[in-house]
Amino acid sequence: MKFEVTILGSSSATPVFNRNPTAQLLNCKDKFYLIDCGEGTQQQLIRFGLKASKIDVAFISHLHGDHYFGLVGLLSTMNLNGRIKPFQIFAPAALMEILEIQFRYSETNLRFEIDFCPITADEPRIIFQNQDMTVETIILNHRIPCTGFKFTEKKRLRKVLVEKLEKDNVAPEYYQLLKKGMDLTLPDGRVLMNEEYTIDSDEPKSYCYCSDTMADGSYLDSIRNCTMLYHEATFMDDMIERANVTHHTTALQAGRVAKDVGAGKLLIGHFSSRYKTLLPLLEEAQGVFANTELALEGITFTV
Amino acid sequence: MKFEVTILGSSSATPVFNRNPTAQLLNCKDKFYLIDCGEGTQQQLIRFGLKASKIDVAFISHLHGDHYFGLVGLLSTMNLNGRIKPFQIFAPAALMEILEIQFRYSETNLRFEIDFCPITADEPRIIFQNQDMTVETIILNHRIPCTGFKFTEKKRLRKVLVEKLEKDNVAPEYYQLLKKGMDLTLPDGRVLMNEEYTIDSDEPKSYCYCSDTMADGSYLDSIRNCTMLYHEATFMDDMIERANVTHHTTALQAGRVAKDVGAGKLLIGHFSSRYKTLLPLLEEAQGVFANTELALEGITFTV
Repeated sequence: MKFEVTILGSSSATPVFNRNPTAQLLNCKDKFYLIDCGEGTQQQLIRFGLKASKIDVAFISHLHGDHYFGLVGLLSTMNLNGRIKPFQIFAPAALMEILEIQFRYSETNLRFEIDFCPITADEPRIIFQNQDMTVETIILNHRIPCTGFKFTEKKRLRKVLVEKLEKDNVAPEYYQLLKKGMDLTLPDGRVLMNEEYTIDSDEPKSYCYCSDTMADGSYLDSIRNCTMLYHEATFMDDMIERANVTHHTTALQAGRVAKDVGAGKLLIGHFSSRYKTLLPLLEEAQGVFANTELALEGITFTV
Repeated sequence: MKFEVTILGSSSATPVFNRNPTAQLLNCKDKFYLIDCGEGTQQQLIRFGLKASKIDVAFISHLHGDHYFGLVGLLSTMNLNGRIKPFQIFAPAALMEILEIQFRYSETNLRFEIDFCPITADEPRIIFQNQDMTVETIILNHRIPCTGFKFTEKKRLRKVLVEKLEKDNVAPEYYQLLKKGMDLTLPDGRVLMNEEYTIDSDEPKSYCYCSDTMADGSYLDSIRNCTMLYHEATFMDDMIERANVTHHTTALQAGRVAKDVGAGKLLIGHFSSRYKTLLPLLEEAQGVFANTELALEGITFTV
């Protein structure tokens, strides 16, 4: 089952050194979810051969421009390209006002419906569910209301022990019921105890996305034991005062967060324009949490 | 004297084939003016080594997103980069509302002043003047109110005939008065008639920018005899019905406009995403008006 994220932007507020503002594309079972949408996201999608038409949902963490300026252009392009299926947006309420005013003055009548779902940054909530995945907000601590997102796979069905079932001449039409955890009585009178013929499926994987925030520990419970953690790391730790003033995180702090919550892997991003090369940030985070990678444009990470 | 324009975007509504939405940078005597500002303009400026900090004025033709979605990001970046000098914007009035709502929700307090000058698309008006240049609106015919812009150099001073002045032993300190067209009486009693020692300067050059419009002839008087004409050419002429419906121009029509008004040179741009290669559009325009070029990203044209 596919559960992977492609980085579309790794820059903080201003785009430099070929780094674009924040955006990521999550692929869960070939359904596509956009996470934040900085300016130029539609160009990045084209650059990496990803189809905007396949995206049906966007999650916007907060209303600093480097996290949403690209959304109105992306929606306009979807409209011009003939989209008719609805597009769902989870974002702070004001974003709809920002979109509407721009569509109004351009006399744009979208041919598709925007299903706008306002989110608040007061307490963690499940905001989205389908058969594949659950999405929960993470309450971050930034200068304006800001939520991260925890994407968790749905628990999969139990795994059947095919060899044992074949040996005992159990027909494959019973496998599905066994996967669902049922004990079975067969027509010949035999009783199959589920626990003898199945094992539990793998633990659901989870991807936590922590865009702009201070690393103040307030949100650690929301991201504990996640399989993969994306955490902003705007500065090196020698800039920690600047990080505190601007409500951002240092690479060292991001590493500590990953370690504290027992994350499986850490991706760092949202790099300040002051850093031309990123290796020092990576090394700083890796000093605390070895399994760290840079969230660089174009790279796809499997959760 | 520098009078040149660098193309930052050549695409119509949707960005494809590495073509970005419309934006141009005009350099008149090393002062920089932005003409339209589609999404990704700030990235394009970086790509071509042009400094956003040097731009002090923007002219926005209309409120279709492919002509202004990049402005809010550009202003945000200028702010983050410490800009304090004012930035002047000529645009339809609603653009200020669109900018303000976004600055409000992101709690952005610009450190520099936006000198916003609303323009209307009712009749041609001089909207800007300084010692180098005059800017006049061109009333275009698009689906929503839309103005082009005519940039005209100020008439330069007369040229002094240096060889003749040296031969007649006229000291260089008198040249400036002669350039201004004055007759002079020298201390030795000689009278210098201006017309014997100077000639008229070249005719002021002009650059006309006609973004989205039908080629309906209504604006030809505003662009007559311009030195260089940028005209949109969204479609080939076999798509003329589509051009009419969407209030756009074909390459053939753009060539005819240039010919009709006696332009010195024609640049075509705003190409539809249906055209992967642009040579057919160029050839179609050149068939009517030979001195046509494609307004391609990164190219600087001297007016």
